[in-house]
Amino acid sequence: MESLPKVLTIAGSDSGGGAGIQADLKTIAALGCYGTSAVTAITAQNTLGVFAVEGISTGMVAHQIQLVLDDIGTDAIKTGMLFSQDTINVVVETLEKHFGPADRGGREKANLVVDPVCVSTSGHSLLPLDAVDALRKRCLPWATVVTPNIPEAEFLAGWERGSIQSVRDMERCAAELGELGVRYVYLKGGHMPFENAKGRKVVVDLLWDSETRTASQEERPFLDVKNTHGTGCTLAAAIAAELAKGRPVPQAVVTAADYVAAAIAASYPVGAGAGPVNHFHSLVQRSLPLPTPHSTTPFTDYLIGYNRAAWERYVHHPFPNGLADGTMPLDSFLHFIQQDYHFLKQYGRSNSLAAYKTDNMELMAASIEIVNDVIKETEMHVKYCEKYGISRQQLQAVPESTTNIAYTRYVLDTSMQGDLLDARVVTAPCLIGYGHVGARLLAATEGVETDETKNPYWGWIKEYGSDWYQGAVRKGIQLLEDTLVASPVSPARLLELAKIFEKATLLEIAFWDAAILAHGADQTAQRLDMPQ
Amino acid sequence: MESLPKVLTIAGSDSGGGAGIQADLKTIAALGCYGTSAVTAITAQNTLGVFAVEGISTGMVAHQIQLVLDDIGTDAIKTGMLFSQDTINVVVETLEKHFGPADRGGREKANLVVDPVCVSTSGHSLLPLDAVDALRKRCLPWATVVTPNIPEAEFLAGWERGSIQSVRDMERCAAELGELGVRYVYLKGGHMPFENAKGRKVVVDLLWDSETRTASQEERPFLDVKNTHGTGCTLAAAIAAELAKGRPVPQAVVTAADYVAAAIAASYPVGAGAGPVNHFHSLVQRSLPLPTPHSTTPFTDYLIGYNRAAWERYVHHPFPNGLADGTMPLDSFLHFIQQDYHFLKQYGRSNSLAAYKTDNMELMAASIEIVNDVIKETEMHVKYCEKYGISRQQLQAVPESTTNIAYTRYVLDTSMQGDLLDARVVTAPCLIGYGHVGARLLAATEGVETDETKNPYWGWIKEYGSDWYQGAVRKGIQLLEDTLVASPVSPARLLELAKIFEKATLLEIAFWDAAILAHGADQTAQRLDMPQ
Repeated sequence: MESLPKVLTIAGSDSGGGAGIQADLKTIAALGCYGTSAVTAITAQNTLGVFAVEGISTGMVAHQIQLVLDDIGTDAIKTGMLFSQDTINVVVETLEKHFGPADRGGREKANLVVDPVCVSTSGHSLLPLDAVDALRKRCLPWATVVTPNIPEAEFLAGWERGSIQSVRDMERCAAELGELGVRYVYLKGGHMPFENAKGRKVVVDLLWDSETRTASQEERPFLDVKNTHGTGCTLAAAIAAELAKGRPVPQAVVTAADYVAAAIAASYPVGAGAGPVNHFHSLVQRSLPLPTPHSTTPFTDYLIGYNRAAWERYVHHPFPNGLADGTMPLDSFLHFIQQDYHFLKQYGRSNSLAAYKTDNMELMAASIEIVNDVIKETEMHVKYCEKYGISRQQLQAVPESTTNIAYTRYVLDTSMQGDLLDARVVTAPCLIGYGHVGARLLAATEGVETDETKNPYWGWIKEYGSDWYQGAVRKGIQLLEDTLVASPVSPARLLELAKIFEKATLLEIAFWDAAILAHGADQTAQRLDMPQ
Repeated sequence: MESLPKVLTIAGSDSGGGAGIQADLKTIAALGCYGTSAVTAITAQNTLGVFAVEGISTGMVAHQIQLVLDDIGTDAIKTGMLFSQDTINVVVETLEKHFGPADRGGREKANLVVDPVCVSTSGHSLLPLDAVDALRKRCLPWATVVTPNIPEAEFLAGWERGSIQSVRDMERCAAELGELGVRYVYLKGGHMPFENAKGRKVVVDLLWDSETRTASQEERPFLDVKNTHGTGCTLAAAIAAELAKGRPVPQAVVTAADYVAAAIAASYPVGAGAGPVNHFHSLVQRSLPLPTPHSTTPFTDYLIGYNRAAWERYVHHPFPNGLADGTMPLDSFLHFIQQDYHFLKQYGRSNSLAAYKTDNMELMAASIEIVNDVIKETEMHVKYCEKYGISRQQLQAVPESTTNIAYTRYVLDTSMQGDLLDARVVTAPCLIGYGHVGARLLAATEGVETDETKNPYWGWIKEYGSDWYQGAVRKGIQLLEDTLVASPVSPARLLELAKIFEKATLLEIAFWDAAILAHGADQTAQRLDMPQ
């Protein structure tokens, strides 16, 4: 498997799991990157607030960063709560040691997103005043993007609290911050909701590019919600993840803001206070694991495993066992072989329908190859019948039994109703089951009569145990597996497919039951088997 | 949204992201739970080893646990690296304070999985010797499950290193650990691979139930792989997540072991040493975000957005504009209304086919309701034709134009080839587009002639702007959205659907183009429109 883009977060730990490195690592993972972390401080907090903070030694902060950069590397970095002036200094020095000076290409290599955490949403001060200056003067020149909210921007720019009253003020403040050496200032307008021309309550997020000295802005609906714990961390981590994937900053901030908005909307209750956002709203559980070297066919295994009892009855059915040891009465065998000839006609049509259901030439070819194999298989039936004095014409005229009609029309209807995957699954029990039976009986040392002068049916067993048939089975299984890997299905859909597989398996059993029940029956009667 | 089961991990932090609370939180999230954490120690490590460890004060460890338990609560707990004897004592005391004594129901409430981390995979000692006794005597009585590997089990039981040589030895050792008060001992056999009867290299994992004094064991293929960093943490966290979901222990350990095996198999390169497992192998990225209060129809928005240019051409087409202001030549209108009548017949068939494609009565009813609406709509066409002297019989006899055949047969074939979703998407541009056009023109103040004595077509506009038609559009959109939420599709499939939507949109444009082109043409000729 290919590696993923990597993102390092340098931040505090939130025991409640909704902010800090916990939120960052969740975000990074949700956006398809690999996350590493350097913890700057431990906080004891929950949704009601931050109750205690304990700093990590600066040596340890540096050590964590170094070890990650030296071995794992990173495609982007995010900083959150940096705890103290000393920590800020050591973070910057460690980056400089690894990437070289900020103004000589170091900034571009580090791909740093700075979330200038000063005060938590719940009001707890997260950065001493003396550290703010270090953040401004040492950290910002390293940053590709800084992501202040309005109070943070005022604070960093040295403006009085409440100075920003308009989008124009936001732009002026962002421009001032840009002078500190950061490439982009992404100023979040969440603290300043207003009514737009359409009368909707909105906020404006502004992106200032300090190189071109231009601003772009995006209007978003104001979300008056409770679960916003850790949104600042989450946004900055999402921007870093998008930068790690190689997205340009203007695109990264929009994707990140969309991600956060959806995470807020999809949040679920956690704790009594401001709960966390739902970081994993964009992921769905695979209903089956991917194939691995130790489990190469998880889909087929699931279909069979879900229907274990029926499957075992099918592949150990007395009918093929009676062919293997030569004890099956001839009229049962002849009933079977004639009905199976007619079955295969419809089975060929079903696989042709599967070919109709795709625009992909390879998949079309795969279905058509099965139809070719089916045609080849029917010639074996014709020969068997001729051996027992049933001409091709007579074989053609044999009426389909009710069991046969039930099975074949179920297969056709399922293929018609659903998509290509339905068509593959409903035809699978026949293909795979005959393969299991053929392989088992060809390898068996007991219960078989392999002398063809004594066992007229042994040729039938040999055919289904043969390399060409076993190869066709392997190809069919691979096709099933590939389809599911390419288009993962929901658990509900998977269950639906298992039930289709089950019904087809039960109809296979009925088909062989009918052959056994046909022994001694009047073969010329209109109804050729017992009602099932 | 409903809340998720919650899991608290009490463990060390791994800067490399592959073990410790990082691995735990990733695992907990991947298995569908909400994770919280209490950090006991910070390690500076990467895939090559653990290079430094710094403990967190015991007061802070206790504080983190308390704040999580008091506000957020938990459905299961996992402990990993506990750092020191003092930390172990404070963890146990904090649990006792919250849950009551272990032997009076506290153990059952805590649902604790203890990963007895003593030594890292890379050989670094992670627990001082004096702490092992605290782990044994104070921690194990609190545990529902303890998950030692073979060296850890020997160490905890006070056996000499290398004493376990057989599965029988594993069982004896597990039984001894069970005497310490833990309910289940899950002894991992990864350190003792052997060849089974079939000649395959396997390991045995053993689960000892100290209450019933019985063992169950599971044979697994031995995985001789490099990326096993953090597997111990991951397994214990996965067991805790399964317990949090309410699974019984024997089921939880099997699910967790399967999860870890798949995570190892799906690992990707990270760092130069033993890389982490792929915790998110079981998740796939949603190709579209879920609907939110601010983005209620993401699927429809995507389909239209992907085809923005074509869509705009369609819903601002000169043909309906010419009906709105009454300037459309009558022969164009009559060409349109007659062809649209025949279009609606096939459109009705397509929606009937959609009904055939489901077994769900509600979805069937929804499709049939559309067919009913279509029938109602055709009666409007009949009336318009009668007004201009074209009888119902004459209307029936009008030959379908090539544009009409192209569009309707494309719709039918797409519905036939694919599943219910294809059927819905290919019929959507007609339903939604006419809705947009009707709503836009009914609300317009310019470019419309609403006086029906002056504009014979105004009735047509009113029909598509009416409440009943707009209601039908809303229902159709909701049906589209619900289908995708219930069965998320892969990005490749989503793109396929966007292309179907695009083709149908272009065919809508062609349909109106043809009406305009029909002006002045010989309406009795066989080919009624220009080839498109």
